[in-house]
Amino acid sequence: MTHRAAVVGAGHTRFGVLADGPRALLRTAVDGALASIDRGADRSSLGEAFLATLGFGGWQIGNSSAVLAEEISPAGIPTVRVENACASGGFAVREGVRAVERGEADLVLVAGLEKMTDLLNARRRYWLGVSGDTEWERLAGLTFAGVYGLIASEYVARYPHARDALAEVASKNHENGTRNPNAHFQKRVAREDVLRAPRVADPLGLYDCCPVSDGAAAIVLASAEHARKYTDTPVFVEGLGAASDRLAVQERAELTRFDASRRAGDAAFAMAGIDRSAVDFLEVHDCFTIAELLALEDLGFVPRGGAVDLTLSGATRPTGRLPVNPDGGLKAKGHPIGATGVSQVYEIFLQLRGGAGARQIPDAETALAHNVGGAGATAAVALFARG
Amino acid sequence: MTHRAAVVGAGHTRFGVLADGPRALLRTAVDGALASIDRGADRSSLGEAFLATLGFGGWQIGNSSAVLAEEISPAGIPTVRVENACASGGFAVREGVRAVERGEADLVLVAGLEKMTDLLNARRRYWLGVSGDTEWERLAGLTFAGVYGLIASEYVARYPHARDALAEVASKNHENGTRNPNAHFQKRVAREDVLRAPRVADPLGLYDCCPVSDGAAAIVLASAEHARKYTDTPVFVEGLGAASDRLAVQERAELTRFDASRRAGDAAFAMAGIDRSAVDFLEVHDCFTIAELLALEDLGFVPRGGAVDLTLSGATRPTGRLPVNPDGGLKAKGHPIGATGVSQVYEIFLQLRGGAGARQIPDAETALAHNVGGAGATAAVALFARG
Repeated sequence: MTHRAAVVGAGHTRFGVLADGPRALLRTAVDGALASIDRGADRSSLGEAFLATLGFGGWQIGNSSAVLAEEISPAGIPTVRVENACASGGFAVREGVRAVERGEADLVLVAGLEKMTDLLNARRRYWLGVSGDTEWERLAGLTFAGVYGLIASEYVARYPHARDALAEVASKNHENGTRNPNAHFQKRVAREDVLRAPRVADPLGLYDCCPVSDGAAAIVLASAEHARKYTDTPVFVEGLGAASDRLAVQERAELTRFDASRRAGDAAFAMAGIDRSAVDFLEVHDCFTIAELLALEDLGFVPRGGAVDLTLSGATRPTGRLPVNPDGGLKAKGHPIGATGVSQVYEIFLQLRGGAGARQIPDAETALAHNVGGAGATAAVALFARG
Repeated sequence: MTHRAAVVGAGHTRFGVLADGPRALLRTAVDGALASIDRGADRSSLGEAFLATLGFGGWQIGNSSAVLAEEISPAGIPTVRVENACASGGFAVREGVRAVERGEADLVLVAGLEKMTDLLNARRRYWLGVSGDTEWERLAGLTFAGVYGLIASEYVARYPHARDALAEVASKNHENGTRNPNAHFQKRVAREDVLRAPRVADPLGLYDCCPVSDGAAAIVLASAEHARKYTDTPVFVEGLGAASDRLAVQERAELTRFDASRRAGDAAFAMAGIDRSAVDFLEVHDCFTIAELLALEDLGFVPRGGAVDLTLSGATRPTGRLPVNPDGGLKAKGHPIGATGVSQVYEIFLQLRGGAGARQIPDAETALAHNVGGAGATAAVALFARG
């Protein structure tokens, strides 16, 4: 494997319904990321920064990367906003790695942020709905819960026990959330409760849907060569893949697979030169429970339909052979849109350095992050390995 | 000089008040860019694409890069949106160059787009105003014309004949626009008419302000090594620089300089390893006439205040020693936000290949593109040379 870059620091706010505005959230995550660098680095060490956000809380809607520049002030380094809806974070990490590889900056910051509750001058649904296909879905009234409900309907009709597997995803991720002090939800939900919950978009019920959360996350990237200047335990980026697809699900050959995830995953594994079997745990994009099952299949860990048995076997629990979303996932940790892809890397940074506390996966050495925009219209995948 | 990448194709729509929607504009620019590649390349040759847009016409506000993916279909390549307000295009070009340098894609597309008139479901001023500082400027009623009016006031008070130089910028760029069939305005405006025009934000009048335009532009980048596979006359990217600053002008030491432009310019020249004297013409960000004067100073072509004499001497006319905005600039060509930074590279591509027709600058070999977001909060500069 050729290391492409290294994560040397990571910070995270609490996810949930928070009193802080976007600027304060950003500052907390950036401060945390810088403070986590073992041998220290301050704002003046940063050479460039990327901001992943969909709407910046309806506040600084354009040019919001300059707010990040202000928080890193007085350096005045280049900052740029990257937006691919819910996959903004994953794509920003990708651009951050490229910036580090160019060697123009010693350290590069990637921050993700969303303020989704208590908005200044925008409706909450506006900042969610705008990422769905406008022509064929949004203006016709199809919400994201609706789209994923259609996908789940088809999946449940096709594979026996699929509805139980969806409930297990919710129950597992809620259980994982109880061990993550940053998680939006930190309470257990039994499978029966998931199945009995009010319907949101049939067959998906209340506990099949991730919450609307505020929050921010940030990571600091260094070049692979210079990483040990900052820490003895860097987490290396080994592979990156990304892909896009048609926005509207009606334009695709099938509802129950995301080709963008498949292509992004294949590209990341090809670049890293490792097999699926080498991966110790996954952070996947479970905006709805069905999305976790699709991810396992699209990323090639099981064949089509195989996610049902894998999930029901307990293999994706933290004690199983392929833990998925040990931090609670979007489901329980929360899903502040732009922050999510960066938050996944935060979790991987903790886990691969043995610093994940109560939720530590023993001896985790290699991990995958999978971030999806919309209903599979954009996807970014990254592979990481312990230094 | 080490070539960093090469522009091998470029396409452009008409700029102005157009009947086409965002998707059609995007398609026209992408088709034009691909068709311009001398030895040919089609959509399937593209390995990655970047979309610069502020609001996508208020239509596909989130995940809009997937619309670009649809237009390049069926490849399903990675697409990502880059947004830094009016500097979105310049920053997208920067990311595109990095993608090509990584060698992951043979050809990379960078497209910029804005649909600003006849919007589907947003107010026009919304998509402009949102890029100004929200806390201290926008919510207090300070528009972009207002901010640049404050800057121009200070500049005019400081330097004799500055108001005449502003009028000369408008008159020159309108004159240049008459030789650009894509320009929003293609009519002459005399200096006296600029001075007599109704005030918009004192001292800036109607002809000191760029128009609100629809339009798109696209370029195709290849690696420097492989460029000649596509054309005998590539235009090489020699240097890139970018920087950010505080959003609100009140937070800065001075009104009449943009430190972000200065830092971005210095970085681009340092990377290219050339002197200012080697540059044959400039494409600078003249959203208001005052901005062209600041650019000449911030980019180091004249000392502070020196842009007045340079401009009044006629040196920045197409026949002068340092032509500025031969395509009419934002002032006359128009300013569809996300398209502008890409449009500047389109002009440079034409000029350095001797294909700019009636507005051709004889023997142009080296050129600079300068793209600003907001009132100097973000800036990107790139240097190009004939192959």
